[in-house]
Amino acid sequence: MKIAIDAMGGDHAPKAQVAGALAAVRSFEDVTITLLGDELKIAPHLSAHDRIDVVHTPSVITNDETPTQAIRKKKDSSMMLAVKAVREKRADACISAGNTGALMAAGLMQIGRINGLERPALAPMLPTLDGEGFLLLDVGANVDTRAEHLFQYGVMGDVYMRQVKNRKQPKVGLLNVGSEEGKGNDLSKQAYERMKSADFEFIGNIEARDVMNGGCDVVVCDGFSGNILLKSIEGTAESLFSIIKSELTSTMMNKMAAGILKPSFKNIKEKLSYSHYGGAGLFGLKAPVVKAHGSSDHTAVFHAIRQARQMVSEGVADVIATDLQRQRSE
Amino acid sequence: MKIAIDAMGGDHAPKAQVAGALAAVRSFEDVTITLLGDELKIAPHLSAHDRIDVVHTPSVITNDETPTQAIRKKKDSSMMLAVKAVREKRADACISAGNTGALMAAGLMQIGRINGLERPALAPMLPTLDGEGFLLLDVGANVDTRAEHLFQYGVMGDVYMRQVKNRKQPKVGLLNVGSEEGKGNDLSKQAYERMKSADFEFIGNIEARDVMNGGCDVVVCDGFSGNILLKSIEGTAESLFSIIKSELTSTMMNKMAAGILKPSFKNIKEKLSYSHYGGAGLFGLKAPVVKAHGSSDHTAVFHAIRQARQMVSEGVADVIATDLQRQRSE
Repeated sequence: MKIAIDAMGGDHAPKAQVAGALAAVRSFEDVTITLLGDELKIAPHLSAHDRIDVVHTPSVITNDETPTQAIRKKKDSSMMLAVKAVREKRADACISAGNTGALMAAGLMQIGRINGLERPALAPMLPTLDGEGFLLLDVGANVDTRAEHLFQYGVMGDVYMRQVKNRKQPKVGLLNVGSEEGKGNDLSKQAYERMKSADFEFIGNIEARDVMNGGCDVVVCDGFSGNILLKSIEGTAESLFSIIKSELTSTMMNKMAAGILKPSFKNIKEKLSYSHYGGAGLFGLKAPVVKAHGSSDHTAVFHAIRQARQMVSEGVADVIATDLQRQRSE
Repeated sequence: MKIAIDAMGGDHAPKAQVAGALAAVRSFEDVTITLLGDELKIAPHLSAHDRIDVVHTPSVITNDETPTQAIRKKKDSSMMLAVKAVREKRADACISAGNTGALMAAGLMQIGRINGLERPALAPMLPTLDGEGFLLLDVGANVDTRAEHLFQYGVMGDVYMRQVKNRKQPKVGLLNVGSEEGKGNDLSKQAYERMKSADFEFIGNIEARDVMNGGCDVVVCDGFSGNILLKSIEGTAESLFSIIKSELTSTMMNKMAAGILKPSFKNIKEKLSYSHYGGAGLFGLKAPVVKAHGSSDHTAVFHAIRQARQMVSEGVADVIATDLQRQRSE
């Protein structure tokens, strides 16, 4: 299979993208990769490999550009051409660590939605205490959401966790302000009602406090709340590590003790890191589009490729289409 | 001034409530306290004090009761009678660590809203890296919210931080999924527009990732998002401490090093603790109602009393009424 990679998006592009691609072709014999980006910038990092080719692209979409303007004006950018490669079936999936909004808009316009799917969702894996992680959708592809959308997120999350993460019967929870039925705003009450008749295993409401405890494989919510949840988990972890660092280096004695614990703290950070979970999938499109974290290193890029590969080989988009068809509300 | 305390609500009631009350009357000569609860359970913890009296109440509202049912059926409960004491002007403020929903419903029905205020908000202080903290409103008093409500939350938060926390010109931010103007759902766009013309210092959108960095004194949002933010900060911190604990006790060497760092970890937990911030104010009522955390110890109760005392002496409800009047949208 062929995977197209926007080699210019992200904080460590193109170095991380090239190194991730090299690692991937070494690990996966069935994968060939097209790197789209500035040839001159890519070349220094790339050792020749017969399953990697480079397509030169003259422009780059930056993070501060408005998505709609960017995709209209920069049709020759690395990101747009990576998405276009999927649209024209020259690639089976694409990956970018660049402008999230632009990637979503480009994916939606160029590749298009799965039949019967109303809204795509952006879905990252987040860490849990047991190290397994849970899938959160949506984190901001849509900010104004209806109950049927949340239901469909549940369908997509269930398929992904079964096909790609090999979870037997994924538990799907609805993010809410209380655990009992009847809690929340109009949207959550309607979504709860709708999900009761789902084929997937709906376990009811889950509070933000409990998501990291590993009780759910999939957590669904509107994109606004999901974005708040995602970013407050990231922000709190960062803040805590920064407080811990300043406390543990405040005296000589502390510094010595902290030195002994350094490998343990590294373990903890590793456990919480997004890198080995891959990127956030843009679920609901006819082919896999993966948004890697902006700060992706080569490991994160490698795992994003692994993830895209599995989504292609398991035919996730087709399974979603079939499941949506079967569970149609009408 | 007189403060009424529901002595039976919360995990450590009535012991924490009584001890907190004793500490408060010792610290504040202008405070007298009425403890409402089970006389027989209160007595063992209470040493005689001429500024504390006890009113026996025969029933208790538990956390698993539906608010509306609880306040209808348990009119003789410690919580309902504490609120009633404020309504009948036998107390200037009341405090409970019990059922949040019941307290909000009782406060709203019995004490009533400030003139011109559309929706009360539940507002806790949350920790920041600099130790100063920020006020978050709303965290769940209302789940379906309009832009004017968010604007009024801004007015109330501004007043509180000026009058009670002595911040000169509190910075008010709007919780959103991006920092630029124009981001978010319909509600956030409308609220942004409305707050541009506010008298308080509106600094624009703030992302969940940044709230703990201390850039805002007040963060406003709808109750659903606020609840997600609050609980994910709490949950992430808890999860992290639990991961850290299991890592740092995994080997003998680690245990020794961790032993040296114990006081530092205690410092960190202290820094993040809600205890010294007091409780969550139910803002927008004609008199202060403070919801102390369910797991409040005597320190938390003491600080909730200190907080209620300041809200009374600074006339927060009156200042809010005046500010609302001045900034009326019509």
